[in-house]
Amino acid sequence: MTTTLTGELLIGAQAKRGEGAAFQAIDAASNTPIAQPVFHGARQGDVERACELADDAFDAYRTLPAEQRAQFLDDCAARIEALGEPLIERAMAESGLPRARLEGERARTANQLRMFAMLVRSGDALDVRIEPALPERQPPRTDLRFWRIGVGPVAVFGASNFPLAFSVAGGDTASALAAGCPVVVKAHPAHPGTSELVGRAIQQAVAAAGLPEGVFSLLFDAGHEVGSALVQHPAIRAVGFTGSRAGGLALVKLAAARSEPIPVYAEMSSVNPNLLMPGALAARGETLARDYAASTTLGCGQFCTNPGLMLGLAGADFEAFATNAAREFSAAAAGVMLTPGILRAYEHGIGRLVEHPKVTTLARGAAAPGRAQAALLRVSASDLLADASLGEEVFGPSSVLVECADEAELRAVLRHIEGQLTITLHADAADGDLVRALLPLIERKAGRLLANGFPTGVEVCDAMVHGGPFPSTSDGRSTSVGTAAIERFLRPVCYQNLADGWLPDALRDANPLHVKRRFAGRPEVA
Amino acid sequence: MTTTLTGELLIGAQAKRGEGAAFQAIDAASNTPIAQPVFHGARQGDVERACELADDAFDAYRTLPAEQRAQFLDDCAARIEALGEPLIERAMAESGLPRARLEGERARTANQLRMFAMLVRSGDALDVRIEPALPERQPPRTDLRFWRIGVGPVAVFGASNFPLAFSVAGGDTASALAAGCPVVVKAHPAHPGTSELVGRAIQQAVAAAGLPEGVFSLLFDAGHEVGSALVQHPAIRAVGFTGSRAGGLALVKLAAARSEPIPVYAEMSSVNPNLLMPGALAARGETLARDYAASTTLGCGQFCTNPGLMLGLAGADFEAFATNAAREFSAAAAGVMLTPGILRAYEHGIGRLVEHPKVTTLARGAAAPGRAQAALLRVSASDLLADASLGEEVFGPSSVLVECADEAELRAVLRHIEGQLTITLHADAADGDLVRALLPLIERKAGRLLANGFPTGVEVCDAMVHGGPFPSTSDGRSTSVGTAAIERFLRPVCYQNLADGWLPDALRDANPLHVKRRFAGRPEVA
Repeated sequence: MTTTLTGELLIGAQAKRGEGAAFQAIDAASNTPIAQPVFHGARQGDVERACELADDAFDAYRTLPAEQRAQFLDDCAARIEALGEPLIERAMAESGLPRARLEGERARTANQLRMFAMLVRSGDALDVRIEPALPERQPPRTDLRFWRIGVGPVAVFGASNFPLAFSVAGGDTASALAAGCPVVVKAHPAHPGTSELVGRAIQQAVAAAGLPEGVFSLLFDAGHEVGSALVQHPAIRAVGFTGSRAGGLALVKLAAARSEPIPVYAEMSSVNPNLLMPGALAARGETLARDYAASTTLGCGQFCTNPGLMLGLAGADFEAFATNAAREFSAAAAGVMLTPGILRAYEHGIGRLVEHPKVTTLARGAAAPGRAQAALLRVSASDLLADASLGEEVFGPSSVLVECADEAELRAVLRHIEGQLTITLHADAADGDLVRALLPLIERKAGRLLANGFPTGVEVCDAMVHGGPFPSTSDGRSTSVGTAAIERFLRPVCYQNLADGWLPDALRDANPLHVKRRFAGRPEVA
Repeated sequence: MTTTLTGELLIGAQAKRGEGAAFQAIDAASNTPIAQPVFHGARQGDVERACELADDAFDAYRTLPAEQRAQFLDDCAARIEALGEPLIERAMAESGLPRARLEGERARTANQLRMFAMLVRSGDALDVRIEPALPERQPPRTDLRFWRIGVGPVAVFGASNFPLAFSVAGGDTASALAAGCPVVVKAHPAHPGTSELVGRAIQQAVAAAGLPEGVFSLLFDAGHEVGSALVQHPAIRAVGFTGSRAGGLALVKLAAARSEPIPVYAEMSSVNPNLLMPGALAARGETLARDYAASTTLGCGQFCTNPGLMLGLAGADFEAFATNAAREFSAAAAGVMLTPGILRAYEHGIGRLVEHPKVTTLARGAAAPGRAQAALLRVSASDLLADASLGEEVFGPSSVLVECADEAELRAVLRHIEGQLTITLHADAADGDLVRALLPLIERKAGRLLANGFPTGVEVCDAMVHGGPFPSTSDGRSTSVGTAAIERFLRPVCYQNLADGWLPDALRDANPLHVKRRFAGRPEVA
């Protein structure tokens, strides 16, 4: 399938040239504009139109039979795959990410949509509960039925670092659509062409399924006005965002200031501490150092789950690890970053650390013009405790090695760090007592705890948590990856004493949809 | 059991005279101080001590075996019941509520604790999910295990209108304790003696179970400083509140301004619209009018779920309903309100409506000094649409009858009203088409939809939703009544590739706790 890019906004079934400021995509590797097409930002009226269409579409879309909603999600997946080579090529140019990574990301994006289609078919997320009437009880109890419905139209912000899996049809969009919520996407200006390609595929899927056009819209803006207007529009009932802390917090603030505040699920900032336990460090320090460097520099370090802090206990094994890791980081190639702005932010962040009197630069990778140079830095835990800014996220291929004088200092660092997406333990059987002692502390600080691996891979499944205490996310009770992500866009509703014929199908006595339900506190027997 | 009240703060295992301002309980019926004891407000240091103890207790309490946590909740219930007559008498004096209501509320409070004990025993709220390793897959998948743990210490604010069921050991406390979260309660100053009695029972239960003392503390303050300090304390991770809109929004604001924002579950404001469908109105308007008056004036109208708006379509049946309802309201006795402040607010709210040029006063109940006088008011839907303040909650025994010119106007009102805890349909089989047409609109506006009943009773069970879109609550994705209330105080955590011996018991291969779990996407077979 060949799709010609036009740079237009996709508002419901329409494709419309925006009347806001024009901008072009940038080729990440060469930092030069990509000539075609010119994208035009949306204006207030476009935001309003997209949100109103979404609101109009909500009732019809949320009451769609599960199988139809599931087929629509499956069709979105198929249409994204059918975009073929042009999608990969455009995404490579706009993001600077390599082919294999983007092909993998495309597969993940499609499979994620299919996973949510399966969840919709299962009816599990509806969480249906029936408490039958107890007419003989004093006082009598009337019939009560519970399920979860979509919160309403959702605004989704594309992420710079996952042009497919966390963008136009990424995890936030897939989970919101699965929940029965129309979606208005604000494309990330770093990959507008990729966004348009995927957006047109979704727009076509909406039309092919005969859904109300407002189920999906896609807006462009190289600035922040469209995003602000979206979050403030009364029809929008929740927000999904992956990006910087400043960006996420700005959206949280806007959403809280509405006359009807709405939840913002912002996945923002994490340094993903890794802990070197003494047994593992002694047994396989060299391998760990190699894997550490590889994980830190993978994809030019542009993952939310990049291992930005590596903590260990002082001693000979720690020094050997530092030496080995420095050698590995020195060998790292210079990398293309997603955008010139991200490269500038990386260079600024590394510069601040390199110049800090308490920081030792253990290694820099290869340098090249317009490329990011990997960095391995070192601080003592006491200095980190005295200046928390040394532990702040620097998005890119760098990490800070932290020497803890003893276990007490390691615990102090864990107590003082901010909330994290992940914390990783490198530990052998001999480390069991220390691991068990640290786990309660670690559980309070992160959404995902790993052993003997690196946190950069995020499996899309039932058991994943990609979320964590503030500021790793704005809402630590949620995940943005995996089936549990759907909960962000659902709210419970109870029906009391309604005639059977007035109830939604999933709640009727005869259970015509064959949904799994709880009846009087137990799984219902069909 | 006889407990002598001392007016002391309960901070962990300690009872301590507060150093803040002294205050006395007020006998609601006579508006005179109750001599004994004098209560002393907490100061900043007391708040800090209670919060630090709660933080210290969190790890031990949350990792307690389920059966022990359940027994502790059961014991709390038994000890509240064992307080016997002195609890009822004190609560009657402080609240002005009648004996039968308070005995019922005590039963509800105890049964609610037992319901959460059963939920803890079942393990259902842990939501355990296991995705086994797939070593042959490319790329291989490591083992992933998911459950939900407590968010940390919770601050609970006692409600004026439920001195037992939404106060010291009410729904918020029970659900937080069930989730594994220590609780620091700020007692409502309208019923400090009732609060101390219940607080001492919980304090004794903590000691009897050998739990860390910080699992429960109780603080007094006649003002707002203690509450503010509590919500701002870093150890507090969530807040439960039932009360006024102004109070709830103030807490939301404080919580959002923290360096680590926390969720506030504030149940605030609802007028609980009731809709008279034409068939029901024609068939049984007189009964409906009688039940309406009874429900509005029940407990002097001091329920969050009081029917504050009654909507119907213009015509002879509506006029007859107005006449009948006016007769019933006129016969309502003057009632004791919970506090002099609540009576003043009621009189002010009714005064504003009575004097409004667009409002007709259909009836006032009997008047008596220091008592609330029931009120039935009437406005047209067009006037309500023009001035939304006519539909704002007036807490007490009053309701506003709204005449809608036609269905379109009824829909317009439903579209414009704020989020509600409940919306009720009075409808017969003949009204089916209209009911089905209105339901999608109603679902978007309320947490609970009722037919042919009144919303004041709130059943404590699996299928209840006592929550709803803003501003009925600050977080419409939650309920404060029923088993689903526990979700407010839980967050998901994922364990990746941890050795079996390092995992929490509920997640281990052998499932030693016999918890229900999902394995590879399906219920696990034991």
